Amino acid sequence: MGQRILIINPNSDREVTAAIDRRLEGLRFAGGPELSCATLEDAPPGIETMRHIDEVARPLCDLIEREDPKTDAFVIACFGDPAVASARETTRKPVLGIGEGGIAAALNHGARYGIVTNLAGDVNPGLRQIRALGLDARLAGIEAAGIAVVDLADKVRSRSGLLGAAARLKERGADVLVLGCAGMVPYAGELEAQTGLKVIDPVFATTAMAICLVQAAAGGQAAGARG
Amino acid sequence: MGQRILIINPNSDREVTAAIDRRLEGLRFAGGPELSCATLEDAPPGIETMRHIDEVARPLCDLIEREDPKTDAFVIACFGDPAVASARETTRKPVLGIGEGGIAAALNHGARYGIVTNLAGDVNPGLRQIRALGLDARLAGIEAAGIAVVDLADKVRSRSGLLGAAARLKERGADVLVLGCAGMVPYAGELEAQTGLKVIDPVFATTAMAICLVQAAAGGQAAGARG
Amino acid sequence: MGQRILIINPNSDREVTAAIDRRLEGLRFAGGPELSCATLEDAPPGIETMRHIDEVARPLCDLIEREDPKTDAFVIACFGDPAVASARETTRKPVLGIGEGGIAAALNHGARYGIVTNLAGDVNPGLRQIRALGLDARLAGIEAAGIAVVDLADKVRSRSGLLGAAARLKERGADVLVLGCAGMVPYAGELEAQTGLKVIDPVFATTAMAICLVQAAAGGQAAGARG
Amino acid sequence: MGQRILIINPNSDREVTAAIDRRLEGLRFAGGPELSCATLEDAPPGIETMRHIDEVARPLCDLIEREDPKTDAFVIACFGDPAVASARETTRKPVLGIGEGGIAAALNHGARYGIVTNLAGDVNPGLRQIRALGLDARLAGIEAAGIAVVDLADKVRSRSGLLGAAARLKERGADVLVLGCAGMVPYAGELEAQTGLKVIDPVFATTAMAICLVQAAAGGQAAGARG
Amino acid sequence: MGQRILIINPNSDREVTAAIDRRLEGLRFAGGPELSCATLEDAPPGIETMRHIDEVARPLCDLIEREDPKTDAFVIACFGDPAVASARETTRKPVLGIGEGGIAAALNHGARYGIVTNLAGDVNPGLRQIRALGLDARLAGIEAAGIAVVDLADKVRSRSGLLGAAARLKERGADVLVLGCAGMVPYAGELEAQTGLKVIDPVFATTAMAICLVQAAAGGQAAGARG
Amino acid sequence: MGQRILIINPNSDREVTAAIDRRLEGLRFAGGPELSCATLEDAPPGIETMRHIDEVARPLCDLIEREDPKTDAFVIACFGDPAVASARETTRKPVLGIGEGGIAAALNHGARYGIVTNLAGDVNPGLRQIRALGLDARLAGIEAAGIAVVDLADKVRSRSGLLGAAARLKERGADVLVLGCAGMVPYAGELEAQTGLKVIDPVFATTAMAICLVQAAAGGQAAGARG
Repeated sequence: MGQRILIINPNSDREVTAAIDRRLEGLRFAGGPELSCATLEDAPPGIETMRHIDEVARPLCDLIEREDPKTDAFVIACFGDPAVASARETTRKPVLGIGEGGIAAALNHGARYGIVTNLAGDVNPGLRQIRALGLDARLAGIEAAGIAVVDLADKVRSRSGLLGAAARLKERGADVLVLGCAGMVPYAGELEAQTGLKVIDPVFATTAMAICLVQAAAGGQAAGARG
Repeated sequence: MGQRILIINPNSDREVTAAIDRRLEGLRFAGGPELSCATLEDAPPGIETMRHIDEVARPLCDLIEREDPKTDAFVIACFGDPAVASARETTRKPVLGIGEGGIAAALNHGARYGIVTNLAGDVNPGLRQIRALGLDARLAGIEAAGIAVVDLADKVRSRSGLLGAAARLKERGADVLVLGCAGMVPYAGELEAQTGLKVIDPVFATTAMAICLVQAAAGGQAAGARG
Repeated sequence: MGQRILIINPNSDREVTAAIDRRLEGLRFAGGPELSCATLEDAPPGIETMRHIDEVARPLCDLIEREDPKTDAFVIACFGDPAVASARETTRKPVLGIGEGGIAAALNHGARYGIVTNLAGDVNPGLRQIRALGLDARLAGIEAAGIAVVDLADKVRSRSGLLGAAARLKERGADVLVLGCAGMVPYAGELEAQTGLKVIDPVFATTAMAICLVQAAAGGQAAGARG
Repeated sequence: MGQRILIINPNSDREVTAAIDRRLEGLRFAGGPELSCATLEDAPPGIETMRHIDEVARPLCDLIEREDPKTDAFVIACFGDPAVASARETTRKPVLGIGEGGIAAALNHGARYGIVTNLAGDVNPGLRQIRALGLDARLAGIEAAGIAVVDLADKVRSRSGLLGAAARLKERGADVLVLGCAGMVPYAGELEAQTGLKVIDPVFATTAMAICLVQAAAGGQAAGARG
Repeated sequence: MGQRILIINPNSDREVTAAIDRRLEGLRFAGGPELSCATLEDAPPGIETMRHIDEVARPLCDLIEREDPKTDAFVIACFGDPAVASARETTRKPVLGIGEGGIAAALNHGARYGIVTNLAGDVNPGLRQIRALGLDARLAGIEAAGIAVVDLADKVRSRSGLLGAAARLKERGADVLVLGCAGMVPYAGELEAQTGLKVIDPVFATTAMAICLVQAAAGGQAAGARG
Repeated sequence: MGQRILIINPNSDREVTAAIDRRLEGLRFAGGPELSCATLEDAPPGIETMRHIDEVARPLCDLIEREDPKTDAFVIACFGDPAVASARETTRKPVLGIGEGGIAAALNHGARYGIVTNLAGDVNPGLRQIRALGLDARLAGIEAAGIAVVDLADKVRSRSGLLGAAARLKERGADVLVLGCAGMVPYAGELEAQTGLKVIDPVFATTAMAICLVQAAAGGQAAGARG
């Protein structure tokens, strides 16, 4: 039977889940794992505060417990990595957070990474998260675009805010950028074009890492059989 | 036309290259990139010293220059990450080192990682590499198995040395292990079984990350087209 | 009208709350703030996992919201600092966690502090918390007593386990100890006597800090009036 | 007999001592410890250089030795923490420095703290002190007001200089400010009002911590008696 | 027989070697070691990229091997410290790199050091080198003069670029500057005069340290004989 | 007129000063600076506590002030670096401490350094000093020999204690040792012989660095004249 990765959008906005689902199309291939995307029902429409991060932990772990028997790996698709530690206690399957996964991927692409975040108030929580992850040595900075999650649909303001943040990160020495919010993905191409820097989409990068894991387990068995 | 990843074994031992090639079988799939493994001819039979690391840089960059037109990403399959920075100046394609890639993968699997290395003399160079990578905050330790690269074929001694090093790393708080040498891969299953810890094979993990990159580029374009 | 500090025991064990209440007697004085202790009803009987920490966040913030109008400062009496960041978004009154507060107090008492924790599995989460707090430079270590929270009533085993952990921390260079669990408070005197080190009870130390804050606000106004 | 805390102003300016004495009024309460403020006679009128810090050590330790029999805790009221380590060798009573104490208090009030200092030349010594304290991870910055200690009486210049420094610290991410000089206390209210940030007066915060200690000792004994 | 230190210019520009030779005149004294300067023939005319650094390793180690029997210490006169680790495996004589040596000297002259480098692209590799050296805590910054190595002969542009970089480093808190390129030595006096900061010439400082080593070995023997 | 370096033994034991004077013989050469050694009269016979370190600051700065007109550089020959920051405010001539100087020298000799200190109580103050210096990244450890300064004349006990500490440092990864006390110099040869590690005598290394500085100033002027 085939393998399955569950990518959980821990907010209740089904549009976001659908966009993630489309975005992952490039990672679906014959013989590869099924990539299933789920919306967390009992959650706010966007994860914007520490309280949101804390509060989605309970329904997230409940969902993971229910899905555990038919799932081989989980991706929690919010940059703040809500409930990742809890989820790892809940299931023995791999659980990846896109904050940790996105930064881990960025490390392979440049000397120092910069994070584009939504609002100025996200910077200190972001720094705390990165200290907790122990990944601050190569952080060039976190810069806010000045655009709330819900305003990312406003293309003119978003473009300008995101490009400004990206330019400041480049000025501060970043040579790879990580998008701090799934809603920024549509602007990734423009950011790459304008700054000349590689832009990491953390949902894509982390899901790819989860696929590797699942394949590694299979590959490892095969190798073991051969070895 | 299909995409291609070149995995370079930067020592001249073709047996090692063949083993890597077999090991990566689990990452080959229909529609996925071609995974090509190359041996570096003008190189010592094993990379065991800082001088080896420095000296393979020139032929490694020459090889990458020659292969650049027909390659989409490069993996340098030596844990010391020889010539990775140089190679990134040599080609605009992604270049991943398995030291950085293996540790980046391990970050997603545990609170603190431990590295199993060959000999006691490898510890300080390893610490320097990890400081340069800025990834020391979550390192539980580096422990030597007391087995030179060339002695890894001796199963009795290797098993005992590797299990001892792994047990010491667990004692020091590691909950995920990274193999510091490609020759240790055949013992990965036993290490997992005996310690109960996840063991990362850095060649496999880094190649998987390179596949993601290549797919991400393709996927990104597709998403762009759709978005 | 007088001021009030609410000390919240975020587990559902009323015995623990009662013990905290008695323990704080020494901080009650004429003219000082009322010290009220509350039990979190919708919570496990002990906070022993990351999932417990995440899951009490919602009821904790709800309780703080309800108590906010009649409270001047909050103390969250669990060393893992559950929901502290969320609670700071929920009320404009000061919110102190006893993990951060206990360590901050310890900094004033010695060159390097050691934390006595319950079980070996608490060490890596503890290290992550301390990295997030940015307070690792003076940490001598975290040592587990090998006694689960529920077994702390077993005096013989607890005494032996706690003294062993304390001795190892002293050996590693700690000159002040922080109790990593409220249930260890009854053993504090013995630990001080046997090791010769100052032992910090983080509930007491953090509540004292909260009293200062409340007095500082009052004092500040008085000083302002005079200035 | 009641308990006594000695707050030592380690410069010879009696005006400063008197201001500290008034400022601490809010921490005096029935049943609480006596708060005594002393001026260090054999000292410069202000502590402005490293040489001042080193030179007051001898008279400071002499004073502490003389006062030791009738004192339960000492506070050294200079942000540079002169002689704190020496004093801890001189007496077995707790000795708190307001640099360490003020920053420890600030940790409980915000994600990252900023220090307002007098002159640009104070920044590098301040950074060295904070490295020695191991508290740099959450420092947003040290900014100089451009006002010497003796010029803090000039309200127009001081207000402007201090507000400028505070605004730059907020810009750099501080969400709590620590006053780096006792002479800045009269401006604390205005700084809070203009920046919207909590401002820590380190003399007040550290004296409060010393009171807690003294009460904790008493409380601990009482608790021990009861336990 | 007298002692000999070999200072190796690892690029092929004999003018640079000659300038180094003249510069070291002040370190030649009766009874002191012979200071010999060599040009690395099989090398690019300037070390400007990571690939240059990697590629000179082989001829550098070959040269050191040939010169080993008649040499007592080696200095590698390029700020990027090419092949220093390899060279230390190649000879048992001391090998000093001017990057590590220049920064180590600067530590003795100020609270925080700044590095003047050539181009903006040198900053991130420089940060990586300093992380590997573990010497980042006292780094005020690296600032680029905007002048390529080959353009350092253009006095007007160089003066302006170097002074600008030095002024920015002073602004960022540096109180001692380290020249990041041998070609900047002729401007050292002007930089000191204009900024008021001590400027370290790393070739001079590191060669002096090598002389000490050689004398220390002799002195140590003498002391041993006496002791 | 010739140049002069004053090496100050900041304790009042003239035997120690005489031993330092003999030890520096290997650094005296024709045309080199005069090396003068002084005993600090108003000082304890050994610097063994933080209070000693603080208390010698005043007479040390007074001595430096008096000697300033006829001196070109100062070395403070106590590993705790007493009054170094103060002294740098007192004179414009270079002031080197042997703690900072000895460690800076050690950085050029190995991957990680270990410090041999006298007593267990010296370890935490030593760690604080090294944090203040920002040089902890490459510290393998500080190990106490268990021999007080005054007992270093007891050859049997000292040899055994020092060799034990050195062996533990080697076990912890040190590949270069720094003597944490001038009285240990007579044992340096044996430590090198038994451990196979380079042993740094910090008085010698730092005085050598001071000589370089003095020569550099002269050399710089000469170079300037030529340039």
